[in-house]
Amino acid sequence: MRIAIDAMGGDFAPAEIVAGVAQAAATGDGQLSLVGQPEAIAEHLESPCEGIDIVPAQEVVLMDESPRSALRSKPDCSVARAVELVAEGNAQAVVSAGNSGAFMAFCVMRLGTIPGVHRPAIAITMPTPSGHRVLLDAGANVDCKAEHLRDFGLMGSIYAEHALDIQTPRVGLLSIGSEPGKGNELTKGAFELLQNANLNFVGNVEGDQVFTGGCDVVVCDGFVGNVILKSSEGNFSTMLGHVQASISKNVWLRALAPLLHRPLRRLKQQFDYAEYGGALLLGVNGVCVVSHGRSDARAMMSAIAVANKAVETEMIDHLSSAFAELVSVS
Amino acid sequence: MRIAIDAMGGDFAPAEIVAGVAQAAATGDGQLSLVGQPEAIAEHLESPCEGIDIVPAQEVVLMDESPRSALRSKPDCSVARAVELVAEGNAQAVVSAGNSGAFMAFCVMRLGTIPGVHRPAIAITMPTPSGHRVLLDAGANVDCKAEHLRDFGLMGSIYAEHALDIQTPRVGLLSIGSEPGKGNELTKGAFELLQNANLNFVGNVEGDQVFTGGCDVVVCDGFVGNVILKSSEGNFSTMLGHVQASISKNVWLRALAPLLHRPLRRLKQQFDYAEYGGALLLGVNGVCVVSHGRSDARAMMSAIAVANKAVETEMIDHLSSAFAELVSVS
Repeated sequence: MRIAIDAMGGDFAPAEIVAGVAQAAATGDGQLSLVGQPEAIAEHLESPCEGIDIVPAQEVVLMDESPRSALRSKPDCSVARAVELVAEGNAQAVVSAGNSGAFMAFCVMRLGTIPGVHRPAIAITMPTPSGHRVLLDAGANVDCKAEHLRDFGLMGSIYAEHALDIQTPRVGLLSIGSEPGKGNELTKGAFELLQNANLNFVGNVEGDQVFTGGCDVVVCDGFVGNVILKSSEGNFSTMLGHVQASISKNVWLRALAPLLHRPLRRLKQQFDYAEYGGALLLGVNGVCVVSHGRSDARAMMSAIAVANKAVETEMIDHLSSAFAELVSVS
Repeated sequence: MRIAIDAMGGDFAPAEIVAGVAQAAATGDGQLSLVGQPEAIAEHLESPCEGIDIVPAQEVVLMDESPRSALRSKPDCSVARAVELVAEGNAQAVVSAGNSGAFMAFCVMRLGTIPGVHRPAIAITMPTPSGHRVLLDAGANVDCKAEHLRDFGLMGSIYAEHALDIQTPRVGLLSIGSEPGKGNELTKGAFELLQNANLNFVGNVEGDQVFTGGCDVVVCDGFVGNVILKSSEGNFSTMLGHVQASISKNVWLRALAPLLHRPLRRLKQQFDYAEYGGALLLGVNGVCVVSHGRSDARAMMSAIAVANKAVETEMIDHLSSAFAELVSVS
């Protein structure tokens, strides 16, 4: 297996990207191709590194560049070349922590979508005390129709079943009340479609259940998904601030603060879904992992692991069969 | 001043409602009218209680009853009679912890909306380390148009200025990126209207800023508002569980757990916006406070304080003048 990695994308590229790739290579799973400016990459890579090769690309898409302008004016950018490797069959997956809009645009343009999928969606995996949970869409589609949400449910269910080993995953529709009639126009329409889809639909779930459970796959539009994940980050940092302030006010707790340091850091990692969960762009005809812009070496390793797992479990084949069936039925 | 309280509404009614009213009366601000079944109320009320009177109403709207059926079939229900007191000028505000859909329906029907307001919205006040913040709509309108969000911005700004003493409140539009072009169709439309409205619009704010700051008033539709507040509750309880598990694993921390108990409980109250913040139904032609269904005596006291403040600061007059101006301009 070969995974193509955009070495130039992300706030801490190429240093942290290269470091993450080197650490992933050391664990020895397949071949990793670092795509980008060879000199910039070489600067951070210890000379000949087993399992890693460099694929040159001269241009770099900036983090705040418009995807449209990148598509038009930077054919030799690192992210395009990395996607190209998958399109040509020279890699089985691509990972980028760069400009996510541009990355998704290149993926859709060069790899196409799986027949039957209306809109690819970003699936975020959230670790929970009782296992993993998937939320989608985490931000690829801000304006959705009911059938898009139905597709998200199907894709999320297949992903949860095969990549996360959850048998007959429970799919929930994020809404504002658990009763079937509750929700806005979009979710009311999606409720009906999901109910008639070939999956284990458990009905509406409310905001609190995104974190506390009740289902394995949470379906929502990309606007709501993005807002909820970001608010969770904000929520966490506010709470952490409060806890730390309380600790610092008490002499005994202050003395024991180092003992709390590790659990609090673990907690932060657990709640920083966007940063550590690894997000798959589901529905594109190839394994594409969208890594957070702030990715460090550890986040990169986690993204590579997500890519690995999706390839190993033949995610694209499973999605293609499911949607081929859906298309043939309708 | 007289405030009408629906004694029969809420999961813990009438016991906790009556207890909260008794405690509020003890602090001595004006007159409180408990509306509901006299025998049921009397059971929880110590005999003649200064500052409290009982207004009889025989029927009770159930928590899961459809608002439409309540409006049609229960003219003598406690919440209708409580709203009635305001409509007739016998009370200056009404508070209910009962079926919020039915409460809002009775408020709109009997009190009407302030001329110029398209849709009343639920404004939640969130305590933050640096003061208070308002989020609206917290759930009254699940499908909104751009002009509704503009109205929410105006109402939130006026509320923050007068009831929360925030000078020229910064109004932010909840979206998925801080740049003006980011968002869905609804927020892009609302962005333009808010920019041209007579308020201190600071542009888009992202999910994390709902809790970490950057603005005093957060504007969103009721679907997103509800989801974000509920997810914050779920988020908090999950985090609390983690912290408590970490504490129990370490013998030193376990010994000091009682010291952490108080700060954690304070934190819970701070983050349980829905339960303790007090929510005002802004845009209705009267002061209406929607209290959480799980309200206990303390939440009831807080809701009464919110009602008090809105009356004292002449909220309805301020809103009416602002919208009269808006209507005359357009």
